[in-house]
Amino acid sequence: MNVLVINCGSSSLKYQLINSDSEEVLAKGLCERIGIDGRLVYQKAGCDKETTEAPMPTHKEAIQMVLDALVNEKTGAIASLAEVNAVGHRIVHGGEKFASSAVITDEMMAAVAECNDLAPLHNPANLIGINACKELMPDVPMVGVFDTAFHQTMPAKAYLYGLPYEYYEKYKVRRYGFHGTSHSFVSKHAAEFLGLDINHSKIIVCHLGNGASISAVKDGKCVDTSMGLTPLEGLVMGTRSGDIDPAIMEFLAKKENLDIAGVMNVLNKKSGVYGLSKELSSDFRDLEEGMNSGNEYAANALEVFCYRVAKYVGSYVAALNGVDAIAFTAGIGENAGIVREKVCEHFGYLGIKLDAEANSKRGEDMVISTPDSNVKVAVIPTNEELAICRETVALV
Amino acid sequence: MNVLVINCGSSSLKYQLINSDSEEVLAKGLCERIGIDGRLVYQKAGCDKETTEAPMPTHKEAIQMVLDALVNEKTGAIASLAEVNAVGHRIVHGGEKFASSAVITDEMMAAVAECNDLAPLHNPANLIGINACKELMPDVPMVGVFDTAFHQTMPAKAYLYGLPYEYYEKYKVRRYGFHGTSHSFVSKHAAEFLGLDINHSKIIVCHLGNGASISAVKDGKCVDTSMGLTPLEGLVMGTRSGDIDPAIMEFLAKKENLDIAGVMNVLNKKSGVYGLSKELSSDFRDLEEGMNSGNEYAANALEVFCYRVAKYVGSYVAALNGVDAIAFTAGIGENAGIVREKVCEHFGYLGIKLDAEANSKRGEDMVISTPDSNVKVAVIPTNEELAICRETVALV
Repeated sequence: MNVLVINCGSSSLKYQLINSDSEEVLAKGLCERIGIDGRLVYQKAGCDKETTEAPMPTHKEAIQMVLDALVNEKTGAIASLAEVNAVGHRIVHGGEKFASSAVITDEMMAAVAECNDLAPLHNPANLIGINACKELMPDVPMVGVFDTAFHQTMPAKAYLYGLPYEYYEKYKVRRYGFHGTSHSFVSKHAAEFLGLDINHSKIIVCHLGNGASISAVKDGKCVDTSMGLTPLEGLVMGTRSGDIDPAIMEFLAKKENLDIAGVMNVLNKKSGVYGLSKELSSDFRDLEEGMNSGNEYAANALEVFCYRVAKYVGSYVAALNGVDAIAFTAGIGENAGIVREKVCEHFGYLGIKLDAEANSKRGEDMVISTPDSNVKVAVIPTNEELAICRETVALV
Repeated sequence: MNVLVINCGSSSLKYQLINSDSEEVLAKGLCERIGIDGRLVYQKAGCDKETTEAPMPTHKEAIQMVLDALVNEKTGAIASLAEVNAVGHRIVHGGEKFASSAVITDEMMAAVAECNDLAPLHNPANLIGINACKELMPDVPMVGVFDTAFHQTMPAKAYLYGLPYEYYEKYKVRRYGFHGTSHSFVSKHAAEFLGLDINHSKIIVCHLGNGASISAVKDGKCVDTSMGLTPLEGLVMGTRSGDIDPAIMEFLAKKENLDIAGVMNVLNKKSGVYGLSKELSSDFRDLEEGMNSGNEYAANALEVFCYRVAKYVGSYVAALNGVDAIAFTAGIGENAGIVREKVCEHFGYLGIKLDAEANSKRGEDMVISTPDSNVKVAVIPTNEELAICRETVALV
């Protein structure tokens, strides 16, 4: 069947039409600047990208334009909308209500809306996208796939913060974790690719992109992850700080004369490797180039990033009491050999041996540890859209 | 020589008079409620505690009372003040200025005052204590011993946060770490006690008290520690949260209608195992009793505490690329066998084997791992006053 995968933000929307049998992407693209001026990017498999500037006052017009492009006589990927058999929606926050993907119904949407508080920027946008799709394709079954669902298997000792327990009871303040679709996909695929029995395996997934998180997966189930109540916690990221002393917020608020929202803006948008490199870049190619040409701030940013990853991996080896495999994924994880090298340097004590040549390559699934390494290290490209497609097919 | 060790808070003051040759404590006690009503507790070695209620409008009167008690005809520990040969002062924050203890001079005190910003509750109180002692004992040499000094050997990748670099340049926002006197004392003593060559050793010190921190010590030098700009970061503590998603501060401020100072108050005083146990206690004896009698909140609090310790230890094993010894110290570290057991359960993969019988005992320095354990685990009681005494003797 053909599954339309939708990832809807507040003023943008990414889509892919995937044939679930062949798992081929038939067409993909995005809508940008929804509610502002509007731009559609559309690309049929094997064809060039097309960009169309056109007004999109709301997500409904944006999705209408996507559907029109999909059935366009010249460059459409399908002949008619009847060939869209299901829609899979990415939803950021499922709170404690959703430990797996779910068919979209009115009750389900109400339950998602109850999690809006926990992801005020994302969940309402996700719901807008779902509503727009329902209006335009009322008879097509739809599924919601949550960023948080995979992490719902964490035990209390991993998801509780050292806070008054009543905040968990009253407001559900706890660790949720994100990138769950990717952590689920990559951990399963890593086990398969490396010949491990997923039901008896300890796998650490390093999803290192502009947003970055790590998860500890035991017997196929997540037992811990580095993002928390929100995607700000954990690793140093592109522009996000990750973990800091919470007291820094008060300190900076006073020094810089900011309110909490102002500090949060700094932590989300001006921090991470971008802030550490004195705003050189959040792109690791630029940082590596900077480091190689003697920019000490770029070098520091890279070192701090890699060291934090290594410490999280180390802490999850303890959480799992050992590890069979470490999988690197997402933009940096898949492409930055230097990051993988600097991280793995910390694990001589586990008998990890990196194969320098394999690590220097780019490509699909790759083992980058030597045959005699005690722990397998692999690069496993993530594919969240395909994961959403598979989840959707399983439920419709 | 005799060293008077002073640890001065804003309205209290702890003291010990130590003979540095025999390392015996000649007398010890504290002043409480300075500036309020005033109470002196004094105890000569081998004698009972004496408590005297007496007005202490300032620290000067408090210290005068301590000195009077020390030379009191009946219960004094010394015949005259000429027998106080040096004073060692605990100072909380030395910023980046002090990587070791220092003789107290006017320049030195000015440099300490420049760190007041980083420890606004503690450093000014420490300086008040120093000034009072100088007035009363103008000819006695004095030394300042910093909580932060031992950690100044951390590399940039460990002390830099993922924040805009300018905050480090402008305000010196970075990881400093605390309990340094204890981490230094315990790591050195652990190496000695365990027969390790400190210059070729990897030791992790778990200082677990009401305030708690962990450090990674390589070849005798600190390379990382869990407290940060302030003593709020890191482990779940008695009443402090330790690490949380920084976004929780904004979330709680909105939900509870608090400003940043209000949230900070919750994180410092109402959180940790006290908050997790629904205010049952921050005392681990109460929590263990609670757990054993079926209180699930107490059980949770213990689990969360131990799991966080285990994750930090795991991350420092990665930071050190291996570990030779783990030392537990301070109130909980020295006395709560259940905590040591739950932490060590995570390290089967390192070949750590705990000796259950040894771990059930209380006492002085103890090895609690089995002879065939790949990593030595020990209980090493800390003694910050003795450490301050030694530092003082070395400098006067």
